[in-house]
Parts: sequence; structure tokens; C-alpha cells
Amino acid sequence: MRCDVLAIGTELLLGQIVDTNSAWIGEQLCTVGIDTYDHRKIGDNLGRMVESMHDMLTEADALIVCGGLGPTPDDVTREAIAEVMGVELERREELIEHIAALFGIRQRDMPANNLRQADIPIGASAIPNPLGTAPGVRAEVAGADGRKRVIYAVPGVPYEMQQMVTDHVLPDLLELSGEQSVIMSRSLKTWGTSESGLAEMIAARVDAQQNPTIAFLARGIEGLYVRLTAKAASEEEAAALIEAEEAELRTILGDLVFAVDDETMEHAVIQRCCDRGWTLGVAESLTGGLVGARLADPPGASEVYRGSIVSYATEVKREVLGVTAENVVSKECAQQMAEGARRVLGADVGISVTGVAGPTEQGGQPVGTVFFGLSVPGAPPEAMEAHLPGDRFRIRQFATISLLNLVRLRLDALA
Amino acid sequence: MRCDVLAIGTELLLGQIVDTNSAWIGEQLCTVGIDTYDHRKIGDNLGRMVESMHDMLTEADALIVCGGLGPTPDDVTREAIAEVMGVELERREELIEHIAALFGIRQRDMPANNLRQADIPIGASAIPNPLGTAPGVRAEVAGADGRKRVIYAVPGVPYEMQQMVTDHVLPDLLELSGEQSVIMSRSLKTWGTSESGLAEMIAARVDAQQNPTIAFLARGIEGLYVRLTAKAASEEEAAALIEAEEAELRTILGDLVFAVDDETMEHAVIQRCCDRGWTLGVAESLTGGLVGARLADPPGASEVYRGSIVSYATEVKREVLGVTAENVVSKECAQQMAEGARRVLGADVGISVTGVAGPTEQGGQPVGTVFFGLSVPGAPPEAMEAHLPGDRFRIRQFATISLLNLVRLRLDALA
Repeated sequence: MRCDVLAIGTELLLGQIVDTNSAWIGEQLCTVGIDTYDHRKIGDNLGRMVESMHDMLTEADALIVCGGLGPTPDDVTREAIAEVMGVELERREELIEHIAALFGIRQRDMPANNLRQADIPIGASAIPNPLGTAPGVRAEVAGADGRKRVIYAVPGVPYEMQQMVTDHVLPDLLELSGEQSVIMSRSLKTWGTSESGLAEMIAARVDAQQNPTIAFLARGIEGLYVRLTAKAASEEEAAALIEAEEAELRTILGDLVFAVDDETMEHAVIQRCCDRGWTLGVAESLTGGLVGARLADPPGASEVYRGSIVSYATEVKREVLGVTAENVVSKECAQQMAEGARRVLGADVGISVTGVAGPTEQGGQPVGTVFFGLSVPGAPPEAMEAHLPGDRFRIRQFATISLLNLVRLRLDALA
Repeated sequence: MRCDVLAIGTELLLGQIVDTNSAWIGEQLCTVGIDTYDHRKIGDNLGRMVESMHDMLTEADALIVCGGLGPTPDDVTREAIAEVMGVELERREELIEHIAALFGIRQRDMPANNLRQADIPIGASAIPNPLGTAPGVRAEVAGADGRKRVIYAVPGVPYEMQQMVTDHVLPDLLELSGEQSVIMSRSLKTWGTSESGLAEMIAARVDAQQNPTIAFLARGIEGLYVRLTAKAASEEEAAALIEAEEAELRTILGDLVFAVDDETMEHAVIQRCCDRGWTLGVAESLTGGLVGARLADPPGASEVYRGSIVSYATEVKREVLGVTAENVVSKECAQQMAEGARRVLGADVGISVTGVAGPTEQGGQPVGTVFFGLSVPGAPPEAMEAHLPGDRFRIRQFATISLLNLVRLRLDALA
């Protein structure tokens, strides 16, 4: 089964918006075992849309068309599909009601243009859109070889598109493909080694394993993910396959794994503090507030995260945090900042980062030099030095996740 | 002149990487007045690459192929172009030297695989890559109608691709198109009105103007940009056209314009403080550190930005910032936080934000309720209330840029 993707929108061609939808759809298709070989983007042009759909359906069994379902006259995906099917559009009463109801909820009048969103090619069906006014379209067309092809039109708004693909398009594709299996995947997120290093560590497992399959995803400063995808007759069987392989991989990867699936590094840190009933305070310098901003993000953060003293100026380090170290880019300073964070913020755990993000050296230290500090109950404060690559932006981002990872590892080591 | 874009890489189809290159290239082409109608991405598959190139060149005058120039055996863009041209590859001595020199600089041995990067189709030319080992390729092929078509192969690494497109591909395309004009563009960045509101304000200018043209770019939480693109016989003339229209637009848009081109909202705030010789301190709550992180970003930030007290916990608001307001989601609290930031951080200007990012209401205030505080020398502290839409993530981002915009406007109003 092969399903390709056609993204619609002149703004995509002109770079006013980056098309992230087709990548997301490609990932979903891959996860459920459907091939995808050709993704295209074209402008809001009826002739080119019709031509592209015809052309793409000579190779693909199904086509997801993303965008062009809006209310304005330049949104012509509905018309293009009708032309490919060789039929007219018909206005559906029940869709008008759905759209009007959404406007009712929002206490606004419905512009007449929005009625166009209730138009569906005769013989096609509407795909429900609980999140917006644009219903999707599911249309069957006969290929040149007489075999049935399916076009799915989904909105260009990412969260509307994602819900529609997850709830309707993927299940329908799986049914069409005759695939009876359950497909399940899990991502182990790692931090602390290179892509080639990670690949080497688990090369034997990757070679040995057909089910679940093992794939790498490099996510830049968010780390390297190892994704397991299992196929089985039931959810229980798929889960058992994933769990068995996850256990094998965890034996090899150890504490490189910081989270699973939707969890993040900050979630890992908040969770560990929560488990001990500890609160957390931050003192940060070159990161400007990034560490605090991440720690405020996970659910449950307010139980743990007290706040952050962003001591960008040296005097703030001295006057607010009580730093006495002469060099503010040093281990001593990082330790004193961590202790200051605990004291000033009334936290059980204090963590800190100071360093040189550039563009020029500071305190005799070259760009990229960073010191992390940690102060926990019942132990002397510690500090670690790191040398981070990249420009100002990357150094600050790397410093942030590196500090959080360090805190995770140290809290685990306390046992 | 029409130039389309073909992005190469199985990882793009599987969503392991989002293709941002084609959007960037599309923006450049648009800026210099070259049409682009069809962007595709396909995997590292020789047959499909050859087929796509043939197919795309039936419509386009030129094609930029992005990616597949790496050293590993799955990188076959060179082979695909040779096949489209109907020629063999030849290994170029001068390219081997360039690649070896890059490895020399990096003090590493050159893997034999990298020699493949010195292969160029016979009759094609190499495009220099000062930033990496992969030279680009410029190849001419005859279309079915006998007219010349050009294929440019550029690396998939964004900064290598961008330099090659800017330095070689665009000038070559402009020469081919016979375009003698200078093209210049400028973006006015606005914050504070809706896309339709902005469109209405400047509709008469958009209709009246052919040179410079006026386009909108919606950048989400970064605002709405109005981009002017002028075409003229010389740089001076193009600049004069842009300046005249910018003056007209600024008369209409007034203080909605917060920055130009690469400047950001935080740059606007830092600049205004810098002009007055004032330092700036932040007290933030729901944003967790985002305001501080943005203010640390612009060049010159260290002269102005003292730091931020991220008072996520109520006790930190009271104990560190001296907030006495009973309700910590209130105007009174925002004012006291701004004054606290000035005092604790030793800053001339104190700014603050407190509010409810969700998921649940707080202090009797619904999700999205936000209060901003401002305290400047010689004036009583102020506070403003806002109601922001969206989920937790968007509310925090909106609150951050809204506060910075407010500070910009208030500093300007001080005169």
C-alpha cells in the first residue's frame, strides 16, 4: 500500500510558511507500515492541482491532499477533487449546521464564504472536523488500470489535520490495505552520546530485530531517539514485543535513556524531585531564563519548581545570590550560585549554570566554556565544567539541556 | 523564468527531518522575481530521482535539486543527473584536492567514500562549496522542445545550501532570465493587529503599488510582516523606491511597526533602554523565564539586561520581590513585581508578568488572564490586563511578546 502527500498553498512555495504537515503525515504512515514515496507542494491553482492529483495517483494507491479547504475563493481543493472525479459539488445541509454551530459557539456571524466549506463532490464523503469549520473529503476514483484509488483531503491547520489523519485517514488506509495487525511504537529518548556512538552500541540489536524494527531519529538539541515499532495480531502482543526489546535496549543504553515518547528532559527532572518531595530552584546566567522556562513546562511543575534567579549581570550574582568568587565563569561561582538559588528561593535543590555564550571570551575563558552547579540536601555542593560547540544560540540551548541532564543523573546517583 | 525545487532524502519522507530548504529557496526565488510552482520531495532512489527530474523539467526552465550529494553510497544525485544528461561521471582532480584540504584542516583522514564527491557528470560544471566537502553541480540538458534547461544540485545541509544558492545559483538564474535589474526587499514587522485588520489598513497601498510590491507574511507569535520588494536599474534606485513606500506605510501603520528585517521585538526593547542609558530588570511568573531568555539574546543585551526574578512560587513573589497583594494574579501584584524587579536587580526599569497559563483557573481568574507591570524612573508603576487565547504553550509565548511590545510602546510614549 502506497500513500503519497500533496500539500496545497502558494504561501508554502514562497516560503512564507514551512510545510511541516507532510513530514508529520510521512512519519505516521511509516509507523503503520504504509509506503510513501512522493510528497509535493503546489500553489492554490485549480489546473495544477487537478494535474498533480492525476499524476500522483498513477503511482500511488492513495493520496492525502493537505490544505485548500478554507472558506475563501482561492481555496479550491474541493473543486479540484470534483474535477478529478468528473462530478459536480453538492452543498450538504448537515455540514452547514456543523459550521454554523461552530460560529454560534464563537458568538460571531457566519460569513457567506463559509458555506463553501459545506460543498462536497457528489459521491464523495465528508470527514468530520470537530476542531474547525473545514470538513475533510474522502473520494474514490478509478485509476487508469481500473483499480480503486482514494483521495483524502484534510485541512492545512496542523492540529485539525493531525486529528483527522489519526482518527479517520490512518484507520481507513489500514482497512484498505487489508492490514489486520496492530502496529505500536515507542521512542526511547537518549542524551549523552553521538549518533554513530549510539548506532554502534545497538548495532547487534538493529541487525537481529525484524519485529519490533529499530530506527534512529536525530532531534538536535533534544537528543537522539531510538524508535521501536512492533506489528502483532493484538495490542497485548505488540506491547509485549515492545517491552521485551525495550528491556534489551535499556540494558545496553543504561542511563543514556532520559525519557519515553512524549516525556521531556524537564519532565524527567521534575518527576525525580517530585518522587523525593523536593522543591527545585535555579540560578542561571548565560541561559538568560531558558532553564527556568523549560522547568515550568511539565505538568506538576508548580509542586516542584520554585523559580529562577537569572543573574545576567555580575552584581546580581553577588548581591542577590551571594556569589563571592572572583571569576564569575568558574566552578566556584557555579557552586555558590546553586547554593544561592536554594537559599533565596527556599528550595531543597539548587542548580545553576554560568559560562560564555559568546560572541567574545569572558573572564579569560573561551566561548563555549560552561560551568554547572548542583546543591542537594545532605551533600556538599558540586560543580562540573563543559565545553560546548556552536554559536551563541546553540551554546545556550546545549547548556540548558546539559544542565537538566546532569541534574537527572545526579539525582539518580543519590539512590 | 520558472525554477522548481526537488528535495532528496528518505528521512524527509519519513518525517525524521522537516524539509525547510525548499521553503527557503522558494522565498529567495520569489524575492528575485523567478516563478516557482512545484516543489517535490522523494527518497534516495536513483530511478525515482531520474523520473522526477525528467518530469519536472517538462514544465520548469530550471530545477534546484537539494540533497543527495553526501559521500555515502545512498547519495546518488550525481548519478541521477548524469543519467538525465545521458553521460558518465568523471572524477575531477581539483575537487579531490578541495575535499582533501578540508579533511586536512579538520586533522582527520579522508575516508575513500568522500572521493565520490569529486565525481561530476561529463559536460557539467562544479559549483564551489567553501563550507563543506560536497561541491554542487550545474548541468544543462535539452528539453523535449529543444530549449535549454538547467539543473543545479546543491547540498542538503542548510548553511552550505544557502551560501551556494545565494552566491551561484541565483545570479546564474538571473543571468539566464536576462533580468538586468537589482531586486531589493525589506520587511516591516508589526505587532498588535489581526491579519485582516492589517490588510484593510494598507489595502489602498497594496492595490496602488506595483514597484515595490507589498506582501504579507504571517509569523504567528512573532507578528505579521509586510514585505516590500523593489526592482530597479541600480541599488540606489531600488533603495529609494523602498524608502518612499516604507515612509507611506509607516504613516498608516504607526507604532504597529516594531522592527525591520532581522531585528526582533527584544532588540527593539534593548535598543530603547540603551538609547536612554537605562538598565532593565524582569519579574516573571507564568512565563517561567521566557521573557528573560529573549532579552538576553540581542547584541548589546549585557549593557542593559540585569536579569530576571522568575517567581513561579507565590512565596518567592512575597519573599524575594516583596509582593503584598493578596491575589497574585492581579494588577496590584504585577505592579509590585515590577517594582520588586527594579529594587532587587538594581535596574532603572522593572517589567513584570503574572497570570494563568492553565490548565486550570487560579485565584478566581480564568485561563489566559494575564497582568503586565511596568515601573520606570520618575513615574508611578503601571499595570495592564490582557486575555490571551490558546493553550498553555501559546499563552506563555503570547504573554512574553505582549509584555515586550508593551514596554516598547510605553518607552516610546515617554518621549
